[in-house]
Amino acid sequence: MSLLDGAQSLRVVAVGAQLFSDALAAQAVPVTQVDWRPPLGDAGIEADLARVLADPRRGPGNAAAVEKMLTAGAELVDVRPAGEALGLGRGEFLHAGPPIGWDRAAGPLRGALIGALLLEGLAGTAEEAEAALARGDGVSLDPCHHHRTVGPMAGVVSPSMWMFELRDPVHGGTAWCSLNEGLGKVLRYGAYGPEVIERLRWMSDVLGPLLQTAVRSHAKTSPVDVKAIAAQMLQMGDEGHNRNRAGTLMFLREILPDLIRSGAPTSEVAEAARFVGGNDHFFLNLGMPACKLACDAARDVPGSSVVVAMARNGTDFGIQVSGTGDRWFTGPANTPEGLYLGSFGPDDANPDIGDSAITETGGIGGFAMAAAPAIVRFVGGEVADAIEATRLMYEITLAENPTYQVPVLGFRGTPTGIDATLVTRTGILPHINTGMAGKVAGTGQVGAGLVNPPASIFPEAVAALAELAPPL
Amino acid sequence: MSLLDGAQSLRVVAVGAQLFSDALAAQAVPVTQVDWRPPLGDAGIEADLARVLADPRRGPGNAAAVEKMLTAGAELVDVRPAGEALGLGRGEFLHAGPPIGWDRAAGPLRGALIGALLLEGLAGTAEEAEAALARGDGVSLDPCHHHRTVGPMAGVVSPSMWMFELRDPVHGGTAWCSLNEGLGKVLRYGAYGPEVIERLRWMSDVLGPLLQTAVRSHAKTSPVDVKAIAAQMLQMGDEGHNRNRAGTLMFLREILPDLIRSGAPTSEVAEAARFVGGNDHFFLNLGMPACKLACDAARDVPGSSVVVAMARNGTDFGIQVSGTGDRWFTGPANTPEGLYLGSFGPDDANPDIGDSAITETGGIGGFAMAAAPAIVRFVGGEVADAIEATRLMYEITLAENPTYQVPVLGFRGTPTGIDATLVTRTGILPHINTGMAGKVAGTGQVGAGLVNPPASIFPEAVAALAELAPPL
Repeated sequence: MSLLDGAQSLRVVAVGAQLFSDALAAQAVPVTQVDWRPPLGDAGIEADLARVLADPRRGPGNAAAVEKMLTAGAELVDVRPAGEALGLGRGEFLHAGPPIGWDRAAGPLRGALIGALLLEGLAGTAEEAEAALARGDGVSLDPCHHHRTVGPMAGVVSPSMWMFELRDPVHGGTAWCSLNEGLGKVLRYGAYGPEVIERLRWMSDVLGPLLQTAVRSHAKTSPVDVKAIAAQMLQMGDEGHNRNRAGTLMFLREILPDLIRSGAPTSEVAEAARFVGGNDHFFLNLGMPACKLACDAARDVPGSSVVVAMARNGTDFGIQVSGTGDRWFTGPANTPEGLYLGSFGPDDANPDIGDSAITETGGIGGFAMAAAPAIVRFVGGEVADAIEATRLMYEITLAENPTYQVPVLGFRGTPTGIDATLVTRTGILPHINTGMAGKVAGTGQVGAGLVNPPASIFPEAVAALAELAPPL
Repeated sequence: MSLLDGAQSLRVVAVGAQLFSDALAAQAVPVTQVDWRPPLGDAGIEADLARVLADPRRGPGNAAAVEKMLTAGAELVDVRPAGEALGLGRGEFLHAGPPIGWDRAAGPLRGALIGALLLEGLAGTAEEAEAALARGDGVSLDPCHHHRTVGPMAGVVSPSMWMFELRDPVHGGTAWCSLNEGLGKVLRYGAYGPEVIERLRWMSDVLGPLLQTAVRSHAKTSPVDVKAIAAQMLQMGDEGHNRNRAGTLMFLREILPDLIRSGAPTSEVAEAARFVGGNDHFFLNLGMPACKLACDAARDVPGSSVVVAMARNGTDFGIQVSGTGDRWFTGPANTPEGLYLGSFGPDDANPDIGDSAITETGGIGGFAMAAAPAIVRFVGGEVADAIEATRLMYEITLAENPTYQVPVLGFRGTPTGIDATLVTRTGILPHINTGMAGKVAGTGQVGAGLVNPPASIFPEAVAALAELAPPL
């Protein structure tokens, strides 16, 4: 269709409100509607954006931040208890998302903290644990992200939990994540019944030490390359957040010969192999710290508007941006929409929770949905929605990931490196795939679905960048 | 675009030869070209088709055959040496494809037979083996398919090779396939060097017995459900012929606890786990007999034009059709086109070989390419070609497989149940994904690619069906 056609008939390109287009269409005038929205934020945002976009440090800063994010490696170098790896002392607990106290903590976070106190022997009953947490004596809470750690869902880490330890051989970073418990009634979804505590004890007593032996033995030749597995899993229908099936199988295969030769009793090795193989999400807790390493590598670049963390504590959704250091920009967490387990429904779901949005921050998860069309069976929607979700994320990211590729998009790299100014200007919010926890402490998982961050936090980050930028 | 538009301007739908369309298009007349070809075969084919299509047994016969093909199950019930499982005696060898003797055998089949004689101790050197095969004394050859067996590539089975034994719990069939050796210099690609024979000895001495223990132990609770794994792998980027990565990992996971508890020395278990996990094609030799069970269930239905076997011996491509019993319709095998390993090129490739086209006959492999967009990195082409390949196969098949689904096509079932009359009428030939063997005996694998059967064999099958049909 060339412009010359306009000589014969009226053709209109309409931008913004749909009303005008509708009126023209009703009169049989062909209209091309361009999806445009006003920027996020209030009146001052135009000035903030102008100042941030004019910051001469921004272009090279974003390029440097994204370059680091894309080139970061992720190798599994050890498995150790959190007390030893992170120096967590008795009564010290980590949690997902931005900082929060017991008073504002949501049900699943409260449930997980209760369970962690029971696990650590700091309380004999749930009631005692709750009272101790409410008083706050002998108990301290801190975000995982403040300790180079990420935790899915409630993300609670206590000293006796064993942690994957990953290192970035390119930029030198280290990141940690606990071992995945499986689905359903598990601590990270806020459940704390006896079966939850028993499973965690077995993980500390048997699984952790076994994995330590195998991982250390494997690392003598070469550490498990977690980034390479993550790249492969995107070729195998996983997106790395809500679908980790192939990743888990590849990790199991990789560690298996060392596990078998660990010298542990055969029954324990068989049980560990069954536990890991029977939990399609086991790799999530390796993919998350891999993305954490990539995002941490991109931190603290002056003038950069690249988002380096998205995290939720079940009450607040927070982001951190490269150019604004450790400052959190927070707003109320939205409640995911998706599919529910058993008889659970929307009323049972807690608002968005977990550090697992580090996967989207690093360019996989909801940003790689097109690689995992089967995910719609888990989070709802149609296959076309999954492909469209990824396409849309290119609008708010700065790069296409050369390592993480989407076969069905002709091996296009996943959209990576969220730019807070692009989100603010386009109004397109990051797509996050996520599990849904029951809002009542102790419930466990109720479903899985999709969620967006609150829109307000991106213009807030832009305003903070504007304050740090040179005057216009 | 409604027909009324025709009042204003000429619009043409053209069928058949492109010449007319090109002439109109050159005069700026909009043309819709419909892809139509005359039927395959020579002058008599119209009469044959008419008689077959009018056969009152054909409709219900095809429905029954396809129903059996779709409902057949596939459970792994045992692992045993071929001598025991198939009753193969000393000097008896099976091979892929339709019947053939040493005189017409292609390089890779000759190479594999030489290796098998060395493995069985029937010859001390390759030269001795070749002489014995040429003389034919003490050596007999028979197609795998005549023994409810399928073999990838050369498909050579000798008495000491261990076989997967699968059973169809729905229709009662049994099928066998050897254990997969991996890629490169392996017997099935015609290599027979010392490392090939040594690997086969280890497979007979260590791997086979270990798998037997594990598979029998697993079957005490329930046999490994091979069909369920095949269904899952299509959700994980495998198409089940040239890509079996997820399938292999799922099989390994399933058998692992029994393997670990087998009581075998830890070093042997670790070596077996490494061998299976390190060979992305290990599951091919489970998927093939699973498809063989489905296709065998559809055999011998009077009047049915459903293809129940496609197989190649490296010289001839043969098909069998449900309504014509054990008769083979053969033509010269084409040479695949695709990607080559290392410095190999088209001149090094042998024509199409192997029973592995049983996967396409059963509705996976090349028919499920849309499930495996990453396959194009292995066989060549673009992602769009992979999706289009599957779409085209719906034109020549009778059903959509309710078990084998393609996520990116909105979970549409794979095209299953090739109808020889549809192939003949449309001229659309089945798409087969395949490995490429070096044409010189002893070479091994030279690449992987795509291939079609020779067109002539489908009208030949139709002619045979016509002879068996009632007169018009």
